Amino acid sequence: MSFKVTILGSASAKPTYNRHPSGQVVNIHEQHYLVDAGEGVQQQLIKYGINPLKIREVFITHLHGDHLYGLFPLISTLGLYGRKTPLKVYAPAPFGELLENHLKYFDKELPYEVIWVEVDTTKHTLLSENRTVEVWSIPLRHRVPCAGYLFREKEPGLNVEKFKIAKYNLSIAQITAAKRGEDIWLESGEQIPNSELTYRPYAPRSYAYLSDTNYSGKAVALTKGIDMLYHEATYAAAEQRTAKDRGHATTADAAKAAINTEAKRLLIGHFSARYKDLEPLLTECRERFPESYLALEGETFTIEKER
Amino acid sequence: MSFKVTILGSASAKPTYNRHPSGQVVNIHEQHYLVDAGEGVQQQLIKYGINPLKIREVFITHLHGDHLYGLFPLISTLGLYGRKTPLKVYAPAPFGELLENHLKYFDKELPYEVIWVEVDTTKHTLLSENRTVEVWSIPLRHRVPCAGYLFREKEPGLNVEKFKIAKYNLSIAQITAAKRGEDIWLESGEQIPNSELTYRPYAPRSYAYLSDTNYSGKAVALTKGIDMLYHEATYAAAEQRTAKDRGHATTADAAKAAINTEAKRLLIGHFSARYKDLEPLLTECRERFPESYLALEGETFTIEKER
Repeated sequence: MSFKVTILGSASAKPTYNRHPSGQVVNIHEQHYLVDAGEGVQQQLIKYGINPLKIREVFITHLHGDHLYGLFPLISTLGLYGRKTPLKVYAPAPFGELLENHLKYFDKELPYEVIWVEVDTTKHTLLSENRTVEVWSIPLRHRVPCAGYLFREKEPGLNVEKFKIAKYNLSIAQITAAKRGEDIWLESGEQIPNSELTYRPYAPRSYAYLSDTNYSGKAVALTKGIDMLYHEATYAAAEQRTAKDRGHATTADAAKAAINTEAKRLLIGHFSARYKDLEPLLTECRERFPESYLALEGETFTIEKER
Repeated sequence: MSFKVTILGSASAKPTYNRHPSGQVVNIHEQHYLVDAGEGVQQQLIKYGINPLKIREVFITHLHGDHLYGLFPLISTLGLYGRKTPLKVYAPAPFGELLENHLKYFDKELPYEVIWVEVDTTKHTLLSENRTVEVWSIPLRHRVPCAGYLFREKEPGLNVEKFKIAKYNLSIAQITAAKRGEDIWLESGEQIPNSELTYRPYAPRSYAYLSDTNYSGKAVALTKGIDMLYHEATYAAAEQRTAKDRGHATTADAAKAAINTEAKRLLIGHFSARYKDLEPLLTECRERFPESYLALEGETFTIEKER
């Protein structure tokens, strides 16, 4: 029942020697979701031991190259690998035109279907859902239409306390009914309320990816109580003006977002190429929000289960 | 007066953990030419200490993604770097359509011009020329229109033998005339033939890049006497049938090309992802052509001057 995020890249538009552009894999119960796909993302997947064929869906925040250029090569390679399962790509318009051009010039005979799902970056929408997870869009404030993504684990099923099974001598049918949330009638005629028999094994976990963006009160409101927040911090706190003008955030903005969402943990990334040493950026965040971490490529951040 | 080739990638279509797709920089007298531009080429340039802004012209062999996907991100980044100098890209059609799409969606406000020069892959044509170098197309045999590229250093200027200057007490004007190739009349009335006074400081050097291709007798004929030959060797010698069917070459093909061009040195690359260990491929080449080398990324192969 994993819930973890592996960083594939943390550069902003200009890549550096040791920082690739944006890309992350969110692994929830071994379902792998790719969030952003900067150049080199397929090789980063291989490097960090994630089989590219495992990618279930792709979420693209916006149509700037440093978040997207790696997707088309990945699409080609998945074809060479013989992928058959359709691949859904959630992205703002006009991604469909880019995809059409790509398929026309490079992948006329792809053995699987790439399905574009348009993301309205002005709305908070449930985009994808299964028994395990929901993925929601979060409107962001960038120079072009841009959406963050919120991953929410579904409520896990109820467990029945073992000692209650023994105490009331529950049958298999009664245990199953209790797991469905029902109250149980014993042969004695006594009714045992479900809450006395069962418990949630852990609280559902959540992760939000907010990049690229200015500080956004709306995004904060939509990610309240998040377990782990990735917020871009392209610039140091002193560069507030530059950040604002360019639709980006500073370390101070990222920390403010973490404080206001009441996040348990903050990851920062999308670092400007001007910063060779990232420790000062981390320090600026930690002074404001101690549970801050650099989203360095190759690192995996796990959200542990909490009851 | 450098003449060297730096390998940026040596993978074929599926990249591997440690092999990027095709890309090389040919440095002739500090003029840098990029040949093929697979995904990640801009970061490979940075990694190997070559400033991307130094790229003078780009030569694309064919429009398969593993030779091209890195070009568009590079074009974007050069814009962010503030490049002003136009960039010529030599590539087969319909590269212009791809470029147009790229500019439309990603680089509407590029501060420099990207100029596509169409390469007719059926012809041996002088594409680019300056005082230092000529670049020629070489028709290749692949599944799609594909051209190799031949870099020929121009004849270096004549040097005047120092001891002859002393012997004949030559004036500056006479030395300059001798360097232009003229015979010299001494005050005594004696005529000294130019060949007695001057020498070529070194023989012009040459490099050919032949990928992707089946063995091609025509390409061999056009690269006769080459100093250094890069020939793809996607497969081991035993895979002749697969190579032929897919428009690729084996180690045996590459060695045969080196033998028949009378190359001084052979570099092989574009290795299939199936080969984790490349030494057996090298051995197969060396058994046929001893001066064979693996085009491993990060390696630089220098062609030394020879008089």
